[in-house]
Amino acid sequence: MTVETVAVVSAGDMGHAVGAVLANSGLEVITALDGRSRRTRDLAAKAGMVDVGDADTLVARAGILLSIIPPDQAVGFADRISAAVISAGADLVFVDCNAISPDTTGKLGAIVTASGARFVDAGIVGGPPKIGGKGPRFYASGEHADAFAVLADHGLDVRVIDGAVGQASALKMCYAAITKGAALLGTGALVTAEAMGVGDLLLAELRSSQAAMLGWLEGRMPSMPPKVYRWVGEMEEIAATYEAAGLTPDFHLGAAAMCRFIESSPLGKEVPEKRTMGTTLEGVIEHLAEFAAAPEARRSPAAAKGR
Amino acid sequence: MTVETVAVVSAGDMGHAVGAVLANSGLEVITALDGRSRRTRDLAAKAGMVDVGDADTLVARAGILLSIIPPDQAVGFADRISAAVISAGADLVFVDCNAISPDTTGKLGAIVTASGARFVDAGIVGGPPKIGGKGPRFYASGEHADAFAVLADHGLDVRVIDGAVGQASALKMCYAAITKGAALLGTGALVTAEAMGVGDLLLAELRSSQAAMLGWLEGRMPSMPPKVYRWVGEMEEIAATYEAAGLTPDFHLGAAAMCRFIESSPLGKEVPEKRTMGTTLEGVIEHLAEFAAAPEARRSPAAAKGR
Repeated sequence: MTVETVAVVSAGDMGHAVGAVLANSGLEVITALDGRSRRTRDLAAKAGMVDVGDADTLVARAGILLSIIPPDQAVGFADRISAAVISAGADLVFVDCNAISPDTTGKLGAIVTASGARFVDAGIVGGPPKIGGKGPRFYASGEHADAFAVLADHGLDVRVIDGAVGQASALKMCYAAITKGAALLGTGALVTAEAMGVGDLLLAELRSSQAAMLGWLEGRMPSMPPKVYRWVGEMEEIAATYEAAGLTPDFHLGAAAMCRFIESSPLGKEVPEKRTMGTTLEGVIEHLAEFAAAPEARRSPAAAKGR
Repeated sequence: MTVETVAVVSAGDMGHAVGAVLANSGLEVITALDGRSRRTRDLAAKAGMVDVGDADTLVARAGILLSIIPPDQAVGFADRISAAVISAGADLVFVDCNAISPDTTGKLGAIVTASGARFVDAGIVGGPPKIGGKGPRFYASGEHADAFAVLADHGLDVRVIDGAVGQASALKMCYAAITKGAALLGTGALVTAEAMGVGDLLLAELRSSQAAMLGWLEGRMPSMPPKVYRWVGEMEEIAATYEAAGLTPDFHLGAAAMCRFIESSPLGKEVPEKRTMGTTLEGVIEHLAEFAAAPEARRSPAAAKGR
């Protein structure tokens, strides 16, 4: 199977970077920007992605569509694309790359399959790719995974794994459970220590006895605040994944609450390109500890204790 | 101030190791073993600790008492010692070394202080000491912290920090929030992946992209199952600490539920000296994933979803 046109929705931090890699390999990369923000439009343009406006045109023109959007929008988007596939009678490979649980993936896959499109479950592990650099792994499962694997010839690190739809999502969920979960856990502990007046002592103790863990947190925490708004849904999907395996969902419901707390702080309202606050581990801690002590953090149902 | 006799209660994994260091320095180390297990008696004997039976005799003979017990027993023990101090009119330095929140420490300290004893808040950071080796840090706060610091001349790494009762506990809570919290978080993710059939893929991915984190988990997970029974109370105290700082308690309520799940498994019922199951990271994962799938794990209110 050859492919000429790939649709990537949306052109956010991950989507536009994936689009840029595919466009750079000679493919036409299209997206739909109706109703999207100025920032998303700028990222799409930078990546060489072509705006075709709406879902119907996407489906009419693309052989493969990658859905890369915040997890709580994944099912709604699959619904819209499936309706477009039905009305156009299109032949489409629909690749769900979102951070959603195996159960949610199964439901979404059933909708897409019923439309006549071929469904692939994919899980992206790692950060956005850079052209010519090492990119994230796109684990893929389900009977149509090979139809997505053709993009391995166009710069994506696609790894087809044995098993049905849901397996790639399970892997992604458990990976993010550790990486994003531990980053949020560490942030909570450091902010609590700072709020209680022992922040410097804790950092000194960690530097001495947990240098690897502190270094790991230093590598992740500064870039975290502007993106946690889209982690809320992901943490809730991870909680559901744990529960399906017979374990407590509370850990990642706590992680989701921590995301809401950070998102509702001034730090969580910055955009990655225009950061002015807290671009070091210490800065992030200081800003969040200040916010934790502020009345609006305690009042907001979407903040500290929100579920 | 000189000290000749120190009481250490109880003679568990940490307590007997601390007792051994103090006894080795020439101090008389006493404890009270009425009603304790065979294992605790053996550990005390090995450490050279003298059993004086009950709380009254402890208080009559010791200049300093270290309380090193599971966190949910800390307040009840302080009550008993305080009653003994009152009836004996004893002059005692009571050092609470337990993993309890600043608020719980404050309540406990008020009980002890009302008895006439001098109260010290201490937090142990690090594993049990070995004679002649590097030991854990005993952070200490409160106006009587210096009276505990004399044990620095007897092999303990005592670090007096500025501030009132509660500061040492805050530091201990936030440190354990990261170390024990991340170990439990990682265990949950690895067990979920194994239960869903992607355990090997997750380990391979972590080995490739998160080697430091995986190595950290490999260093902690194998020794964890037999001791999580006493982490339940600690996780609940950490949850209370986060809440007092204005953050979500859910993370560590999830950690407590994870402890109960591990505790209720066959792996959680082993004793450290007689392990036969799961003494590697892979072994721990395999046993727990099997247990997660078993009906008794899902049925037990104290297990998977217990609070």
